[in-house]
Amino acid sequence: MFLKSWLPIESDSHFSLRNIPFGIISTSSSPTPRPAVAVGDQALDLSVFAAHNGFSALSIIQPHQSVFSQPTLNAFAALGRPIHQVVRGYLQSVFSVDTPFPHVLKDNPELQEEALIPLRLVTNHLPMQIGDYTDFYAGLNHAYNVGVLFRGPANALQPNYKHLPVGYHGRASSVCVSGTPIRRPNGQILADPTADPKVPVFSECKKLDIELELGAFVCKANKLGEPVPIGEAADSLFGLVLMNDWSARDIQAWEYVPLGPFNSKNFGTTISAWVVLADALEPFMSKGLDSDTELLPYLKEKREKNMPDVKLEVDLITESGATTTISRTSSRNLLFSFPQMLAHHSITGCPMNVGDLLGSGTISGVEQSARGSLLEQNENGKVSIKLEGGEERKFLEDGDTVRIRGVCGEEGDGLVCFGECVGKIEKAVGLKF
Amino acid sequence: MFLKSWLPIESDSHFSLRNIPFGIISTSSSPTPRPAVAVGDQALDLSVFAAHNGFSALSIIQPHQSVFSQPTLNAFAALGRPIHQVVRGYLQSVFSVDTPFPHVLKDNPELQEEALIPLRLVTNHLPMQIGDYTDFYAGLNHAYNVGVLFRGPANALQPNYKHLPVGYHGRASSVCVSGTPIRRPNGQILADPTADPKVPVFSECKKLDIELELGAFVCKANKLGEPVPIGEAADSLFGLVLMNDWSARDIQAWEYVPLGPFNSKNFGTTISAWVVLADALEPFMSKGLDSDTELLPYLKEKREKNMPDVKLEVDLITESGATTTISRTSSRNLLFSFPQMLAHHSITGCPMNVGDLLGSGTISGVEQSARGSLLEQNENGKVSIKLEGGEERKFLEDGDTVRIRGVCGEEGDGLVCFGECVGKIEKAVGLKF
Repeated sequence: MFLKSWLPIESDSHFSLRNIPFGIISTSSSPTPRPAVAVGDQALDLSVFAAHNGFSALSIIQPHQSVFSQPTLNAFAALGRPIHQVVRGYLQSVFSVDTPFPHVLKDNPELQEEALIPLRLVTNHLPMQIGDYTDFYAGLNHAYNVGVLFRGPANALQPNYKHLPVGYHGRASSVCVSGTPIRRPNGQILADPTADPKVPVFSECKKLDIELELGAFVCKANKLGEPVPIGEAADSLFGLVLMNDWSARDIQAWEYVPLGPFNSKNFGTTISAWVVLADALEPFMSKGLDSDTELLPYLKEKREKNMPDVKLEVDLITESGATTTISRTSSRNLLFSFPQMLAHHSITGCPMNVGDLLGSGTISGVEQSARGSLLEQNENGKVSIKLEGGEERKFLEDGDTVRIRGVCGEEGDGLVCFGECVGKIEKAVGLKF
Repeated sequence: MFLKSWLPIESDSHFSLRNIPFGIISTSSSPTPRPAVAVGDQALDLSVFAAHNGFSALSIIQPHQSVFSQPTLNAFAALGRPIHQVVRGYLQSVFSVDTPFPHVLKDNPELQEEALIPLRLVTNHLPMQIGDYTDFYAGLNHAYNVGVLFRGPANALQPNYKHLPVGYHGRASSVCVSGTPIRRPNGQILADPTADPKVPVFSECKKLDIELELGAFVCKANKLGEPVPIGEAADSLFGLVLMNDWSARDIQAWEYVPLGPFNSKNFGTTISAWVVLADALEPFMSKGLDSDTELLPYLKEKREKNMPDVKLEVDLITESGATTTISRTSSRNLLFSFPQMLAHHSITGCPMNVGDLLGSGTISGVEQSARGSLLEQNENGKVSIKLEGGEERKFLEDGDTVRIRGVCGEEGDGLVCFGECVGKIEKAVGLKF
């Protein structure tokens, strides 16, 4: 179904009428962060829209209109998926060429003038206040590739890998919105990893990497001691964003035993600004990777199509502007779905809260050109990646920009996309002691 | 210096006038959580005290009095250590037998009646809204003991251990206040860890353990990309609490490769209710463990006495009431101080926020009776711990209560203590599939 709008929307727009992603915006003339949706190349300011009776036809939302004047989407998300569905459907109908509510916006140039803002004039903010952030490791090809590099093909995957979605608690405070500069971290690294005894030096990170991921936001809380059953987990998911879990491989290699990655992962995790609602992804649900392992019942989903098929691309843009697409893959390269991650995470009774973020883990296909981290592409520093314009890279250099894009559907049918997830590397802080 | 109060305070009280710890309380007649301090066996309700001009003599606090009607201590903590010092000093003077402000409380029976509440009538709440929780591993004896159990004495400590405070990001949402029941978690465990291939079963945790720790709250934020220098780190710490980082050893053993502990640690972390301010601990600052390793400059503290000397005790109380002190040790058994943990954590530019919690890692002495986890005491399940009343334990059973206490100073001089950190084990949720 292609929804046609009275608002001009290009056929290659990330934000067709099938999408209606939610975000938090501000503008230079109105600097208070507030909710909006993206449609074509416009943002609809929901605080203005609500204040001017834009939702007056939607009685179910009347008691909750204050959610549209909050600085995050948490309050809206907490209303639950049935309400998200109704609000998104209503906004689609408002923008539809044959809208039953023409007086609301289509034939209301004053409100259009006030509530529609070109996206190029908008500043995006983190869409949610993130309580806890958890990063999973469900990209089987990535886990295998990295395992081969460090342990060889026979022991590439740990024995637990296919039985449970391996994950670890990440650093919520360092999650930032697309466009935020990422400062190269300092830390302890081994100048010579083969030396004995191992003595670290203080250095800027020299192996700065990316991790191509999807992130999912939680929209329903459970109490301490009360697991979320797998059958209810999908209803606890608000929507998805693109994610780049920047990683300092040299800091990671030295620090990570025995408790896992820490400082190598807490200097920045970039997410795209617009949350694509779970309902918008329904038409694109597909299957993830097949598993040869029988899962325990608490992880078994009734639904076979549990994974949205998002076509993903990673561009590396050098300071000179030369742009190279260094990876093309799909979110179908995941072994576990977000509902499975949520069911596993909470099986102990761990409380999940509205605004919690779950990362998928790095998404890699099987081919070299489909790998979602530089570590895999350069085979742990052995191979250089050729860039447009003649430069080469093993890891990221200062001034490099990484841009992730994600697309569902085909041009002409109305795309459901994620906008961009962008970060530019700044040089490390010069520290004196 | 022993401060004498007009309020009766027993000589063995945890909350002498030297202490003045801050917490969040409610009562059955006034269920809104609000700040208080503990003095003797009373809580002084700071919201009532402030509303009745209790702080009118303290002009510096006048513009900030709203911090005393918040449901957490975050706003008070954010005022910074110089203000904490002034407020604590003022409250000491108000309670002092020769108070210069007798009209405020000493000679004001109406306000005493309204603002002083016996601690036994008080419900405690989490003192801070915790953004991120990080657990370190700075208890060298614990790390060594566990390393011996799993890797033998030659490789007990990883090469990085003495160079940096090893840590991992924990689960903030599962931190709970003393007294909250802890439900035994379910999860994946290996029924037979020696079987090949390894196939997990779904089970309740059968190796439920404790970890005796101290926790420190952050009171000063830094921005993404801007490390906290070691010389400024102590000023970023609000105060300390006792902590029990409950651990599911069988879930941990199966899940933890390669990214560290996850579900084995996210079903509950108990902290004591009263935050002992950094200033209250100043007289008890001491040295931690000596290190034979030269630290990198970003971790070098000018101050030699960087660790409070807290005498710690762990009691195990069975359902029958039989109480056994299973561990006695001291916080001096840490290799890194909280300022060092904070400097390391932020050296990458990781943003710390007011209310973030840092755990010390399990604190163990060298003797068997000074070990801070059951895993160490039972030598990974080989040895039983004898309890009062004839029972034995390897790990915790349903109905067991664990109580941690922490004491600074000597009875008669006025103690600075932490109250209790208590949790009782409830049986696992029965799950049907």
